[in-house]
Amino acid sequence: MSARAKAGSQSGRSADQPVGRFELEARDGAARSGTWQLAHGAVRTPAFMPVGTHGTVKAVSPEELAALGAEIVLANAYHLYLRPGHELIRKLGGLHRFMDWQRPLLTDSGGFQVFSLANINRVTDEGVWFQSHIDGSRHFVTPELVIEIEHALGADVTMAFDQCPPGQADRETAAGAVARTQGWLERCVRRFDELSGSDGSQVLLPVIQGGTYLDLRLESLRGARALRSWVGYGIGGLSVGEPKELTYEILTGLEPDLPQDSLRYLMGVGYPSDLLEAVRQGYDLFDCVAPTRNGRNGTAFTSAGPVNVKLAAWRDDESPIEPGCGCWACSCYSRAYVRHLFVAGELLGLRVLSIHNLYFLTDLMRRARAAILAGRFDVWVEEWLGRYGSNQKRGNGIAGTGLRTG
Amino acid sequence: MSARAKAGSQSGRSADQPVGRFELEARDGAARSGTWQLAHGAVRTPAFMPVGTHGTVKAVSPEELAALGAEIVLANAYHLYLRPGHELIRKLGGLHRFMDWQRPLLTDSGGFQVFSLANINRVTDEGVWFQSHIDGSRHFVTPELVIEIEHALGADVTMAFDQCPPGQADRETAAGAVARTQGWLERCVRRFDELSGSDGSQVLLPVIQGGTYLDLRLESLRGARALRSWVGYGIGGLSVGEPKELTYEILTGLEPDLPQDSLRYLMGVGYPSDLLEAVRQGYDLFDCVAPTRNGRNGTAFTSAGPVNVKLAAWRDDESPIEPGCGCWACSCYSRAYVRHLFVAGELLGLRVLSIHNLYFLTDLMRRARAAILAGRFDVWVEEWLGRYGSNQKRGNGIAGTGLRTG
Repeated sequence: MSARAKAGSQSGRSADQPVGRFELEARDGAARSGTWQLAHGAVRTPAFMPVGTHGTVKAVSPEELAALGAEIVLANAYHLYLRPGHELIRKLGGLHRFMDWQRPLLTDSGGFQVFSLANINRVTDEGVWFQSHIDGSRHFVTPELVIEIEHALGADVTMAFDQCPPGQADRETAAGAVARTQGWLERCVRRFDELSGSDGSQVLLPVIQGGTYLDLRLESLRGARALRSWVGYGIGGLSVGEPKELTYEILTGLEPDLPQDSLRYLMGVGYPSDLLEAVRQGYDLFDCVAPTRNGRNGTAFTSAGPVNVKLAAWRDDESPIEPGCGCWACSCYSRAYVRHLFVAGELLGLRVLSIHNLYFLTDLMRRARAAILAGRFDVWVEEWLGRYGSNQKRGNGIAGTGLRTG
Repeated sequence: MSARAKAGSQSGRSADQPVGRFELEARDGAARSGTWQLAHGAVRTPAFMPVGTHGTVKAVSPEELAALGAEIVLANAYHLYLRPGHELIRKLGGLHRFMDWQRPLLTDSGGFQVFSLANINRVTDEGVWFQSHIDGSRHFVTPELVIEIEHALGADVTMAFDQCPPGQADRETAAGAVARTQGWLERCVRRFDELSGSDGSQVLLPVIQGGTYLDLRLESLRGARALRSWVGYGIGGLSVGEPKELTYEILTGLEPDLPQDSLRYLMGVGYPSDLLEAVRQGYDLFDCVAPTRNGRNGTAFTSAGPVNVKLAAWRDDESPIEPGCGCWACSCYSRAYVRHLFVAGELLGLRVLSIHNLYFLTDLMRRARAAILAGRFDVWVEEWLGRYGSNQKRGNGIAGTGLRTG
């Protein structure tokens, strides 16, 4: 039980020592390990970030997130702006206090959500008119407003407002989104600097767009780098429906131009094998609803691949979800009990599998980090991927191990 | 995190020192406090027993139940017989191990459920033909089978199989249920003695029926007492739709004939003011789905009465659900956050309010016990009831503070 104390101390901020400094610690091939110092603590990378869209990771408490090893949690500015409102959260002491999470937080700007969930009425260079997906109310968001929302929420890391086209967008659409995202980024920076002058505990990351066109991706990156030096870069608009080969092509092509001393945050990626491929290609931070959404749907992540926990084979299986797993669920419950919870429609099942799946990814990133630090990432990852999906080959698993939208 | 160790040691059993002995410690008027020694630990009374129908208290983990002070949990033989099956649970080491709860457990026999949930095909003296409420499959349960189910589950306390008529049953129906329940009790005792001879860790309680007819209630009690001396008595078939005045009449009328050295378990009662009235009249143990079901529906128990947490007044309220409350939810979260969780449809809200409401009743029984031990129960309870419901008078609460079926 955590005290309802005010969020931890805020670091100072100067040109020489920006808050949010990312320290690269080791490289092994393109794979990297590092430490990101944020106002509420350190994030060791590679790292997976659980998604708490509405200021809560579905079915999981902050104590449980800390216990499973999560070092940073994502919340969504778009959702919290609509409900309960960012000014309310500011008034109540900020998002850390509101949701009782005292480690680092990142707020996504809502670019992805505005373009995927809302009814878009009109997109102009000035901003976006849209209708709420909740109640149909009309809203106009500008880059400045998004930064104000994120400032009110008070997360350690804020993302710039971007235009996120669909994964299959044509070149013209993707190019338009890059140009608009660049214009918006300049305005985000201006507003961020105005607001953070009196505060200094937040960092801002740009979001690189460009669809599946490498030259556009590089243009987007050049545009961001021309504005200032960044502690990290968000890579948006991938894993949004495009073929997986194209995703990897973009990641590979973009990597050499990303500064080594900045963090690379690949947004929306969260299946085990995709995380490892991205780590191998030099990316550091990830988020996705996959572990919690799959958990609520009765799919357990295991080292042999995803498993439907209602499988008949689990009916009288005394072993834990994943033998050897150190999570709370695996230390308490048998597969037979987990299956029973899902068959009986019991809420505890949603929690048990969400925690297990989050632990699974968090632990996977810890192991990847250890392998990188030991200089044996390639050997380790090949072994790991060789086992992964073996239950599919035996016909015990479920489909869908691949890269998917969260 | 509890180890998956085998359930605790089993007490010996002899005619002189039966397992499950109830020690009356104090009386204050008719109100009583005592300690019930069971195979997995002691239960201090008065006590409220959270309901874990399917071997899990909805939305709450065993660690959380222990932390909020629950000393005994109820599970349901009828539900666990249908799903996942009692033989499966026996094979996996019993219900304690299956659900990872190492304190005392009580299994209800399923009498109430067979007569309220299932499609009854035929009731005879031999047993009941019914169709499962889950899949329509046909089943024939006898008193012997119920005892075998409860023995397989391995709870500390098992309830005899009874016929539970509706709360408005006429005299003839109620009398028929008393006669049949008595015949079934004799068979339950026989089968229980056969099975527990090799085990000795379980106790059996009879269920007193008789509807709203005091003479039938007394007849049911006499019948049970004629069979043997019991460590406790279940009072069934109350709080099942009859007027509350009749419930209290029966409780008052029955009390003088209940042995002082036996525990009195009033089944299915779980609203705060009803618990206190029953404690005042000399009853010791209670169970109900009210705290968890109300919690999932967004109703918080407070000392001023039940509150709908979506109330506009909670929108920006920084205080906990109940100021001064020692539960996990109140130590972490503001009313504003709890309201947000329910408005946004977040699963954490169900857990937060279930835990708060269970703590509220558990703590209420602890306070009642302290008042009884201090010899000031009547003063305390009048003060408490005087405050309770005050939010209704101010128009901030919700309807339904009264005795209701769980």
